[in-house]
Amino acid sequence: MTIEATVPETFQGFGIDKPANWNHPKLVQYKRKKINPTDVVVKNIACGLCGSDILTLKADWGTLHRDDAVVGHEIIGHVIAVGDKVTQVKVGDRVGIGAASTSCRSCNRCKHDNEQYCKSGAGTYNSIDKFSDDYITQGGYSSHSIANEQFVFPIPESLDTVHAAPLMCAGLTVYSPLVRSLGTDATGKTVGIIGIGGLGHLALQFANALGAKVVAFSRSSSKKEQAIKLGAHEFVATGEEKDWNKKYDDAFDLILNCASGVDGLALEDYLSVLKVDRKFISVGLPPATKKFEVSPFTFLHQGASFGSSLLGSKTEALQMLELAAEKGVKPWVEEVQLGEEGCHEALTRCDKGDIRYRFVFTGFDKAFA
Amino acid sequence: MTIEATVPETFQGFGIDKPANWNHPKLVQYKRKKINPTDVVVKNIACGLCGSDILTLKADWGTLHRDDAVVGHEIIGHVIAVGDKVTQVKVGDRVGIGAASTSCRSCNRCKHDNEQYCKSGAGTYNSIDKFSDDYITQGGYSSHSIANEQFVFPIPESLDTVHAAPLMCAGLTVYSPLVRSLGTDATGKTVGIIGIGGLGHLALQFANALGAKVVAFSRSSSKKEQAIKLGAHEFVATGEEKDWNKKYDDAFDLILNCASGVDGLALEDYLSVLKVDRKFISVGLPPATKKFEVSPFTFLHQGASFGSSLLGSKTEALQMLELAAEKGVKPWVEEVQLGEEGCHEALTRCDKGDIRYRFVFTGFDKAFA
Repeated sequence: MTIEATVPETFQGFGIDKPANWNHPKLVQYKRKKINPTDVVVKNIACGLCGSDILTLKADWGTLHRDDAVVGHEIIGHVIAVGDKVTQVKVGDRVGIGAASTSCRSCNRCKHDNEQYCKSGAGTYNSIDKFSDDYITQGGYSSHSIANEQFVFPIPESLDTVHAAPLMCAGLTVYSPLVRSLGTDATGKTVGIIGIGGLGHLALQFANALGAKVVAFSRSSSKKEQAIKLGAHEFVATGEEKDWNKKYDDAFDLILNCASGVDGLALEDYLSVLKVDRKFISVGLPPATKKFEVSPFTFLHQGASFGSSLLGSKTEALQMLELAAEKGVKPWVEEVQLGEEGCHEALTRCDKGDIRYRFVFTGFDKAFA
Repeated sequence: MTIEATVPETFQGFGIDKPANWNHPKLVQYKRKKINPTDVVVKNIACGLCGSDILTLKADWGTLHRDDAVVGHEIIGHVIAVGDKVTQVKVGDRVGIGAASTSCRSCNRCKHDNEQYCKSGAGTYNSIDKFSDDYITQGGYSSHSIANEQFVFPIPESLDTVHAAPLMCAGLTVYSPLVRSLGTDATGKTVGIIGIGGLGHLALQFANALGAKVVAFSRSSSKKEQAIKLGAHEFVATGEEKDWNKKYDDAFDLILNCASGVDGLALEDYLSVLKVDRKFISVGLPPATKKFEVSPFTFLHQGASFGSSLLGSKTEALQMLELAAEKGVKPWVEEVQLGEEGCHEALTRCDKGDIRYRFVFTGFDKAFA
């Protein structure tokens, strides 16, 4: 059967027309993008809700490019068709797609396990796909997704679909900076994780699974018990323990900020407890206009650096999935029936922080019956 | 002869009483610090003028702790006495002392080639030396200096004293981040150096000597010819070539900021031309109150980091001196007779930027006759 016969021309999804309706997605139909020879077509069965979805829908990260904008980039589904040149997956495979969906695959970055940083690449939604006639990409709150095979990750059999979904963005986003700073065996290293939320609750688990000593940072002690359960060896309530940094002199090989707010984050305190030549990496992203103020002096005494990190490579995604399967890393999820009502409720609650720690939409067959 | 018989109890130097007199040092006499078993006593013969001297004298980096404050931390001299436990240098050696003069030598940092980051360490001037009864240290615009042997660097015979002096602070400050980011063989790597001044003119030479491709950045093209002579392979006048960053896509393994101002520095442009997972390191330090504003987004697209770096270790200092001797790295210096007049003139001119690229005080015998 040809691809054209297998894959519908029109996909369905839950989309919004304008930022004011950010938490009121409606059922929409849209023409799918063309299928390139290295593309994989997936019939979706689950999709996690990522904080980026809300920031995009509200246009806090820039313009919304469609009036039927569908978000979602923690997608799990089954491959239903592949382009002629696809070699990495086959029809029937259960796979995931994260926040990036294509790249040039020929630049220096693409050739060296940094395809997520390709300057010609496209995000999974609200992004211009140069390799598909400038199609504006659509996310996974939808019936189907199409991505270049480099961005399609086979899911190990032992991982449940609902647990695999949040690994596609949140998981990979924290896993990549962890292994780039600590290596795949972090025994003897100490890592600090700031913020126990969608990203942080996975960072705690992965840092522990990699063998590091893990210290969780949160404003209050309300999440202490959960943090310990998630893999933290120590817990610091920075708002309740004013001199906490005195306890951690020259202690950290990495501090990973998973909190999305920058207000009141005591960057200088965190930098003061790093070992020499180490990094503070922020993967929690605030609205684009919010800034940290930093003086070179802040960094001087530890030779410290402040940076960020974008997703992870396919190589890292496969390592991560293997580690999750082996060590039982599992997002804490709340399942939600995909639909107008479910999208509304989950987006609204997530925006208020009323979630521990990830919504995953399921029931796609029913939603698109 | 005992140390007490060899080393005078009182040293002489050119010091100031208060920040308002920053460029009017007067001849002062002061009691030297005690000599510890691992200390080395040096009779000074030359001292470079570092931008830090001015920032300290003006109290731009914090309080001036003495009313006879002597600065200077690019010191060259001859060893005239050593403590009982000194093993690394001997009386008669020509040595240098940089911006740090002691540390605990027992902490993790001291034991792993990061003694300059020791949290108990002391700077060469205006710093509290915990290992010498909280003596407030005095710099090298003076007859003698005393430092822990770990901070005393033998000078290779082929290096002239006036050329060795600026390597003690400026040289080491740029050499350390270069080798920590690029390794000691930087062949095939590309480094950007911002600011052609006291630090930058040495960074260009060392980056070239390490084998890197070197791109010099300056606001105007006025220093282009000099930058090329110093070792730059390419030159960018950022104020004259508005889209310069388009030419350097995915190009840099390191960008080293040697400019002391942060105003108008287009941090985002520089970060945009880094390869993935690379650093922008600022060794040029502005007054403590000046800040960069950064958003995590700025760093995201390259997985970039912003950081700083403090001096270098003794291991790096010895490597640097060897490389300088081998490859002919030479600061461009203007010699100045040490004295009240010379200090006044050199400090005033340096503050105005009227120097290419380093003043070195000499004539110490005459100054302290």
